[in-house]
Amino acid sequence: MKPTIRDVARLAKVSITTVSRVMNNPELVAPDKRESVLTAIEKLKYQPNALARGLIHKRTQTLGVLIPDISNVFMAELIRGMEDAARENLFNLIICNTDIDKERMISYLQVLNEKQVDGIVFVSEPVYPDYYEVFKRYDIPLVLAATHSLEYEIPSVMINNEQAGYDAVEYLIRQGHEKIGIISGSSIEPISSIPRTQGFMRGLRSYGLKADFEKCVEYGGYLFQDGYEAMSRLIKKFPDLTAVFAVADEMALGAISYLQENGIRVPDEISVMGFDNTRLATMTWPKLTTVAQPIYEMGYRALNKLIDLIEYGTVDELRTYLPHEIIERESVRRRV
Amino acid sequence: MKPTIRDVARLAKVSITTVSRVMNNPELVAPDKRESVLTAIEKLKYQPNALARGLIHKRTQTLGVLIPDISNVFMAELIRGMEDAARENLFNLIICNTDIDKERMISYLQVLNEKQVDGIVFVSEPVYPDYYEVFKRYDIPLVLAATHSLEYEIPSVMINNEQAGYDAVEYLIRQGHEKIGIISGSSIEPISSIPRTQGFMRGLRSYGLKADFEKCVEYGGYLFQDGYEAMSRLIKKFPDLTAVFAVADEMALGAISYLQENGIRVPDEISVMGFDNTRLATMTWPKLTTVAQPIYEMGYRALNKLIDLIEYGTVDELRTYLPHEIIERESVRRRV
Repeated sequence: MKPTIRDVARLAKVSITTVSRVMNNPELVAPDKRESVLTAIEKLKYQPNALARGLIHKRTQTLGVLIPDISNVFMAELIRGMEDAARENLFNLIICNTDIDKERMISYLQVLNEKQVDGIVFVSEPVYPDYYEVFKRYDIPLVLAATHSLEYEIPSVMINNEQAGYDAVEYLIRQGHEKIGIISGSSIEPISSIPRTQGFMRGLRSYGLKADFEKCVEYGGYLFQDGYEAMSRLIKKFPDLTAVFAVADEMALGAISYLQENGIRVPDEISVMGFDNTRLATMTWPKLTTVAQPIYEMGYRALNKLIDLIEYGTVDELRTYLPHEIIERESVRRRV
Repeated sequence: MKPTIRDVARLAKVSITTVSRVMNNPELVAPDKRESVLTAIEKLKYQPNALARGLIHKRTQTLGVLIPDISNVFMAELIRGMEDAARENLFNLIICNTDIDKERMISYLQVLNEKQVDGIVFVSEPVYPDYYEVFKRYDIPLVLAATHSLEYEIPSVMINNEQAGYDAVEYLIRQGHEKIGIISGSSIEPISSIPRTQGFMRGLRSYGLKADFEKCVEYGGYLFQDGYEAMSRLIKKFPDLTAVFAVADEMALGAISYLQENGIRVPDEISVMGFDNTRLATMTWPKLTTVAQPIYEMGYRALNKLIDLIEYGTVDELRTYLPHEIIERESVRRRV
């Protein structure tokens, strides 16, 4: 694979801006830095002219990001990761909020095409066949973040949501819980809700617990109010539960709020576990025990994948799955 | 002032898309709707051809929004208002996150200019002289949202932050509080932090209370952690305070978290009041009493102002100040 300006910057331990400066205005760069950049260029057999031509003349240095919902705290952190990666590579980001609306999504894709972005990151939503048709028509380099496609060959970066659901319920079981409910986002959302719920059910079964789908699963949406309402329904049909796993932090906060308002102490009487480890997880009382996704890194890696795709027309790894981990705070209690 | 497609849609009580359809593909519109659109066009003496030419041929139907910080919950609601207004007028929105970084802000302004947006909404930050120079150079229609400029003639939509600070402390005083502290965002931020703090001090003085700036003001930033840390400093230098006004909801949540962690009950021992009335205000326990900004409406009105500016080169009102109000919830207690 051909070395990039990024490889040079890494090897020389300087910023990409410095490498670019060495190539264009070397007199502005301190001699020791200039030396290490030149050594790195030689070592990697990097061809600055070809790249510089690409960087400066053939591209707009602008990337588009299609996000489903700007009010989701998760998106902000993901975009921060993308922006840092974009900045390091001298790209700008244009963000479009599709509001999970197919018509708007396709309209924004047209806009990004007209604005001649060099590539697009598509966030969080499934790649429906009609989306794929539009992606194909425009033929712009495309990477998926916090989602993937098993049907189509599109590079992606996300976590393994099924395993994360399993790990969450396993954690609760190891804390002594046996009657565990789940508040999931949507019964038809195949990227995060369904796999997390499936992993949860697999976890119950593999520990020999009764996995009664009708009883222990409630669906909501991903917002606070959705979690609040789902909790009220869940506790009615499963009154002796001792722990709840919500598939998003904001929903977990809603569930906690419902319980507290009804005089049920968290975690003393019912433990609540979240998902994502967004900023919200520490903004509540008790602070949330949650499954952490590497959100920032997901954005950062997705954007670097997109730049690889733009530069080489290919990526090292088609579908990347980053590790998740459980962050223990105060909303889950060990049962004795 | 010349009537717009929006005026026609309003009078005919249909969507702008319907008006546009009546002009271009009338056969697709139900007869009764078609009739009312044609009546409205006649009544208003609306000239569809001139406008349609403008709409379809001279413009990109894209607007740019420059926001300082995408992780701020306030921004999401503001953008939602802008998007609804944009959609009603058949515009698309491109969002750029400047991260309160001057260099990036100017670089994104270049990007929006290259992408030939028809207009720009600049959010929340002060219009510094160097920003103004760049705005002038590009000569793109510009409106300010949640900020204003007294130096330059730029249309804007915001609230009166000084009065809102006054009203907040007056509310606390009327609840029986006399020892009141304030957690402000920044000592040099002239749009919201300084005016809210000034209004707060004016309120104390006008009720004959001691307005000791050194003692009752702490600065933070606008995030949860900032509010948490500012609360820890404030209570050390003002240990007998009974109420705190934080100039953003997220900071108020941080302050509440600090107090609760240190065994101080909210609102029983110390009352906490927020600002903004973002989604966060109801996501905590106790729920926040706060000064509500009409965030969604601010975005909606700012965007409509921008469209007026694009269509007519002028606006009805240069600087619009929308009303704020106090929302009573559970974080402030009446002292007897």
